[in-house]
Amino acid sequence: MAEASGAPSAEERRREAETWFRALRDSICAALERIEDEADGPNADRAPGRFVRTPWRRPEEDGRDAGGGVMAVMRGRVFEKVGVNVSTVHGTFSEAFRAQIPGADRDPRFWASGISVVAHPCSPLVPAVHMNTRHIVTAKAWFGGGADMTPTYPDAQDAETFHGALREACDRHGADYYARFKAWCDEYFYLPHRQEARGVGGIFYDYLDSGDWAADFAFTQDVGRALLAAYPGIVRRHMDAPWTDEQREYQLVRRGRYVEFNLLFDRGTQFGIRTGGNTDAILMSLPPVAKWP
Amino acid sequence: MAEASGAPSAEERRREAETWFRALRDSICAALERIEDEADGPNADRAPGRFVRTPWRRPEEDGRDAGGGVMAVMRGRVFEKVGVNVSTVHGTFSEAFRAQIPGADRDPRFWASGISVVAHPCSPLVPAVHMNTRHIVTAKAWFGGGADMTPTYPDAQDAETFHGALREACDRHGADYYARFKAWCDEYFYLPHRQEARGVGGIFYDYLDSGDWAADFAFTQDVGRALLAAYPGIVRRHMDAPWTDEQREYQLVRRGRYVEFNLLFDRGTQFGIRTGGNTDAILMSLPPVAKWP
Repeated sequence: MAEASGAPSAEERRREAETWFRALRDSICAALERIEDEADGPNADRAPGRFVRTPWRRPEEDGRDAGGGVMAVMRGRVFEKVGVNVSTVHGTFSEAFRAQIPGADRDPRFWASGISVVAHPCSPLVPAVHMNTRHIVTAKAWFGGGADMTPTYPDAQDAETFHGALREACDRHGADYYARFKAWCDEYFYLPHRQEARGVGGIFYDYLDSGDWAADFAFTQDVGRALLAAYPGIVRRHMDAPWTDEQREYQLVRRGRYVEFNLLFDRGTQFGIRTGGNTDAILMSLPPVAKWP
Repeated sequence: MAEASGAPSAEERRREAETWFRALRDSICAALERIEDEADGPNADRAPGRFVRTPWRRPEEDGRDAGGGVMAVMRGRVFEKVGVNVSTVHGTFSEAFRAQIPGADRDPRFWASGISVVAHPCSPLVPAVHMNTRHIVTAKAWFGGGADMTPTYPDAQDAETFHGALREACDRHGADYYARFKAWCDEYFYLPHRQEARGVGGIFYDYLDSGDWAADFAFTQDVGRALLAAYPGIVRRHMDAPWTDEQREYQLVRRGRYVEFNLLFDRGTQFGIRTGGNTDAILMSLPPVAKWP
């Protein structure tokens, strides 16, 4: 299909996407640091947390640059551990993966850029959250991602706030998006061996290529904005409330289930670990402490 | 091959193996409870731990009994969490697994009995240990298993004691067993994404069918006896020594690696979880608490 005059080139699209993921990272880090400043609960005697950024490079392929990323991690008084990673990588898929990736059978080269956020709060009353969006370019090009929330103690109002923001983002872009992507999320974040969901869900989408790049990119941006719209308020609702040792213990057991999902089932983790991805960045999602008592 | 007169029948072999795994379970539980009684270190004010046994049944297949097992777990003052599981299960492999299991292409029925031990001590100075042996019968029949040790702080004398006991067990049964099974262990218990071994190794063997069932069974028994010969002494050498908060913290980080191995790579865990095995029994191996700080 010929591009309309004035439409961004392939190179411009990649640059736009990468720039967005970095800008979103900055907004999310700033929003979570503001929460650290405001905290007036059980850990108020501690200093507010700040993100520490660590850049990393992917090993070169045949002597050529293969991209890299920046891990941003904060260990704070509201957020026991929160990681916000951005990366932009490129290279050539190994033989083993060409059959699995759309477009890679025709041309094994790829370019991928994305953002990944996982927040594990100190308080068992504050839900953990995950958001990831990405743009992948092979002989094809598509967006993927999603956001889901994992409370230790599910709360109807929090769930309504979270799902509501994602629904709004979806409804702006496709009449069937919310129903489809919510169901996809529920199916994806399920632990069959426990017969339970990872949390209260959210949305999950992949291989999104409607034929209108700008629209797909705008939707992906709105997913990031939905997290910013919903999650800080949910955190503030609960962060200053005291919690009991029993609640903390239960949180650590529930975090064990989070570890089980990420290591046993999460396709991104399995893919990254088995293809020589950056281990620290991939396993940033694991909680700071978890129990299997 | 016709069986020699007086050789045990297939049914007698299964009964002998199952009886051994149960007897070994009793010996191991008794040995570890004796250690709990003797403890005179940092947790001496606590009551000695005792194993609690919980039987479980596999869901029936087509209305027929499919076997089950007994989990034995102790949460003590030397052993923060130790599980000793025995199980004897039987049934029919699903289509998906028939190609992967020796003999199952000819006849999908199977019988399997085994013991699994994982000990996570309270003290970072006492090594964790794992031992598992099993007898599996399809159209073929074989033994498999092994034992390996995971210290937080490797100690040359402990490693010599542990490896020495396994070497003795191997040398009694096959001139090349120790070299082969030690190398297999080092290869199996390796975390590629961390570029590190899970611990100091031990032995690992599978599909052992030398043609002499009695000899293979005797070897498998000796692997269990080697654990009993080596591990209690290693525990006693260190269990009463005080440890620092830094050492405890490092132990919990190392336990995170143990979780990573078991959930990302261990074939038994992946197989069990994906084939509807008993989740509590399979994940008994996970440490009581682990950190990814």
